[in-house]
Amino acid sequence: MSSGLLRLGLQLCPARRVSCHGAWRKHYSAQSGALEKAIAAFRSVSGDDGVSTGSAVREQHGRDESVHRCRPPDAVVFPRCVEEVSALAKICHQHRLPIIPFGTGTGLEGGVGAVKGGVCFSLRKMDQVLDLHPEDFDVTVEPGVTRKALNAYLRDTGLWFPVDPGADASLCGMAATSASGTNAVRYGTMRENVLNLEVVLADGKIIHTAGKGRRPRKTAAGYNLTNLFVGSEGTLGILTKTTLRLYGIPESMVSAVCSFPSVQAAVDSTVQVLQSGVPIARIEFLDDVMIGACNHFNSLSYPVLPTLFLEFHGSSRSLEEQVNVTEEITRENGGSDFAWAEDEETRSRLWKARHDAWYAALALRPGCKAYATDVCVPISRLPQVIVETKEDLIRNNLIGPIAGHVGDGNFHCIMVLNPDDPDEVQRVHEFTDRLARRALSVDGTCTGEHGVGLGKRNLLQEELCPHTMEVMQGIKATLDPNNIMNPGKIL
Amino acid sequence: MSSGLLRLGLQLCPARRVSCHGAWRKHYSAQSGALEKAIAAFRSVSGDDGVSTGSAVREQHGRDESVHRCRPPDAVVFPRCVEEVSALAKICHQHRLPIIPFGTGTGLEGGVGAVKGGVCFSLRKMDQVLDLHPEDFDVTVEPGVTRKALNAYLRDTGLWFPVDPGADASLCGMAATSASGTNAVRYGTMRENVLNLEVVLADGKIIHTAGKGRRPRKTAAGYNLTNLFVGSEGTLGILTKTTLRLYGIPESMVSAVCSFPSVQAAVDSTVQVLQSGVPIARIEFLDDVMIGACNHFNSLSYPVLPTLFLEFHGSSRSLEEQVNVTEEITRENGGSDFAWAEDEETRSRLWKARHDAWYAALALRPGCKAYATDVCVPISRLPQVIVETKEDLIRNNLIGPIAGHVGDGNFHCIMVLNPDDPDEVQRVHEFTDRLARRALSVDGTCTGEHGVGLGKRNLLQEELCPHTMEVMQGIKATLDPNNIMNPGKIL
Repeated sequence: MSSGLLRLGLQLCPARRVSCHGAWRKHYSAQSGALEKAIAAFRSVSGDDGVSTGSAVREQHGRDESVHRCRPPDAVVFPRCVEEVSALAKICHQHRLPIIPFGTGTGLEGGVGAVKGGVCFSLRKMDQVLDLHPEDFDVTVEPGVTRKALNAYLRDTGLWFPVDPGADASLCGMAATSASGTNAVRYGTMRENVLNLEVVLADGKIIHTAGKGRRPRKTAAGYNLTNLFVGSEGTLGILTKTTLRLYGIPESMVSAVCSFPSVQAAVDSTVQVLQSGVPIARIEFLDDVMIGACNHFNSLSYPVLPTLFLEFHGSSRSLEEQVNVTEEITRENGGSDFAWAEDEETRSRLWKARHDAWYAALALRPGCKAYATDVCVPISRLPQVIVETKEDLIRNNLIGPIAGHVGDGNFHCIMVLNPDDPDEVQRVHEFTDRLARRALSVDGTCTGEHGVGLGKRNLLQEELCPHTMEVMQGIKATLDPNNIMNPGKIL
Repeated sequence: MSSGLLRLGLQLCPARRVSCHGAWRKHYSAQSGALEKAIAAFRSVSGDDGVSTGSAVREQHGRDESVHRCRPPDAVVFPRCVEEVSALAKICHQHRLPIIPFGTGTGLEGGVGAVKGGVCFSLRKMDQVLDLHPEDFDVTVEPGVTRKALNAYLRDTGLWFPVDPGADASLCGMAATSASGTNAVRYGTMRENVLNLEVVLADGKIIHTAGKGRRPRKTAAGYNLTNLFVGSEGTLGILTKTTLRLYGIPESMVSAVCSFPSVQAAVDSTVQVLQSGVPIARIEFLDDVMIGACNHFNSLSYPVLPTLFLEFHGSSRSLEEQVNVTEEITRENGGSDFAWAEDEETRSRLWKARHDAWYAALALRPGCKAYATDVCVPISRLPQVIVETKEDLIRNNLIGPIAGHVGDGNFHCIMVLNPDDPDEVQRVHEFTDRLARRALSVDGTCTGEHGVGLGKRNLLQEELCPHTMEVMQGIKATLDPNNIMNPGKIL
């Protein structure tokens, strides 16, 4: 069964080196009549500066941050409001042109690649925070608003939006990919934090998943369409607005670093911290290879051992208790004394090191590419899966430092590989498939937060029963009968 | 527009007094060939004692705890395993007979009424707790397992399942109706606590929404089918297994009662407690009428004033801090001193009083029936909506004590009415529609947790945009093309 990197054609056509132009021309001429007519219609809707067919712009919109090779769209449109998105979608619908929604291009599974050509909808011009209700802890934003932009906007309100995948992704993009990240153990993922979505469907119709403008904390009003579109990766519609839950900024936050003699000791500590009821805000695992890379990249000097990065949120008194319980647990498991980060600057430096893991890994082999695995397993199975995975890496002479949201049972091997070495690409491909199957064999999933995108479609079929896949295909066919919404992804 | 109680035919055919027999005979003879063949086939699958067509059994399965009149099915089957559910469903599919799943019959929106006849699938014989993973905080149960049965099973593990709608409902029934209740402000609703579902579809196929046996805490593997089936009220399939999140039983719990000079003061206190970040476990509002009824029904002597019932969960130290912050807030809003309930017996008595609200309300007018409204609004709008609603009740001479999960913005008027008085039924009907529209006018929903069922289908259309309804109808048609899954509900 083909899978992973091989499916991406990486060994045939390494990223960055592909010439987008030839592919585009071929596609363009094949359906030039429809495309030309559509582009003329786009211009009448969005003006000349709202439509681009220049190769640089198309290339920029044909790839995300993953190894998946550039698959440029035939055109990029830059709508300014939902009515414009709808009008443009109707043109695509009429001409059966694929629609690929684009937020910030920070995805990790090739979700923005125009594998069947078509039109990229860049939503960056729709960047307004629309409705903030501080007393109700909710806000509605347009799709161009990023996580950091929202939190900057909220700065003086005492509120924040905690879901943090690392990248400064757009919030609708995060909803589309069911993103989560380091804070999910405490605040949940996008699934738990989206209250409502405005969506433009494949035929240009506009819907509001929970009714227009509605924002109750709870609802039992019909099918949960909100959570059907969260994680649908642009294959069911274009998210043009999201209403999000907000949280009060905690009175105090403190971070700490603790190293362990073994992976097992670090994960055992995590399990016990969760069992003890400590409402820990972040608990991130980095293996010895990852810590070494972070030390080098960020000029730090943490012991090169399995390590937990921790963060506690709460009142000063509650923090004291949380920290005491956690320290007792880590000490019993042979953990080091905590290295503290209390003031905001030190905390930021610490978490920057964690969030730079991707670049720190890449710096291990300059000129190489990175691909992140994303399995998620029941936490009791985590030590076994991580230990076996590290043995597998060593056995196959592969570089894949591990960073993980261990509180959720989710971890990433950041595979650093030379895309021009077919043998290495093959070994990485086989490794990622083995890792996914290791997770599946212990009741886990091949993707905890990055999504299926292009690279995990075969693994998804192994993970789900055929009848479950049929239900997903049925829903896709109902909402997008012509298969124009981000075709070639998920299913 | 017809709605609410009128739609239920209550004034024409009061509950309990309807003769189910005539309706059944008529239906039976209309399609007797198919039904007789199906019943014979059921018997070959389930044996004689697995199928019932007796009128008492059918009547018992044709109603829930609401005012909705009895709509008995043509037959009731009692499958013992998922394969049997599947075989029986295939027979219904073949003969185009409606399928109505039945848990404990504790719903409040007429969800089990066989409005088009058909076959009730009583799932009470499937009552096993199947897979408990204490270290992963998850468990899988069959559909006959109730909330209390699960918590009794878990007693020695230090774990519990906190979602608590009051009734001892089956957990799959709670998933089917997206139930929540008093603990939702802290622990979420069924939407946040179901990890996986086994579902028998309308054609008898068996699916697992997150893949068979899978139970990662997070997943981004394809469409979120789990949350499509949660809240689908039996209209998309029969839930035959659910995997649930569990929580550690808190080290300490303490409950308190506090009365206020006004509704505004009680709700303001709630908002401020939430804003202060106190992780309160329950915060329940009872208006003066409700408190009076509870006093009378449970021989209590709380002041007859707007009241909050509170519960705090955590370590002893954390409880102290939570209580201090909350007391300070309630005192500033003119609240009384807290009446405490610390030991388990006193706490149980207090919460029994809250959970008996339904019966306490009914006891206000012996011989009458009750109907609970269920609006949910952004919390900042709650004081206005409750005050206007109380004025509306008084103006129309209606009895509707109010109990609410104010932390979520969700409250119930327990309307106590004489079903034989058409004028009163009409006034209640008009009141419930006004209340729902009042909620809709402030960005809320007509149903926070009871579901749409029979009675709120028209309100759902007002709440959602037509295109959103079309998407729901499309999904229904895809999964149930012959409309045999609990027809006449939601859509």
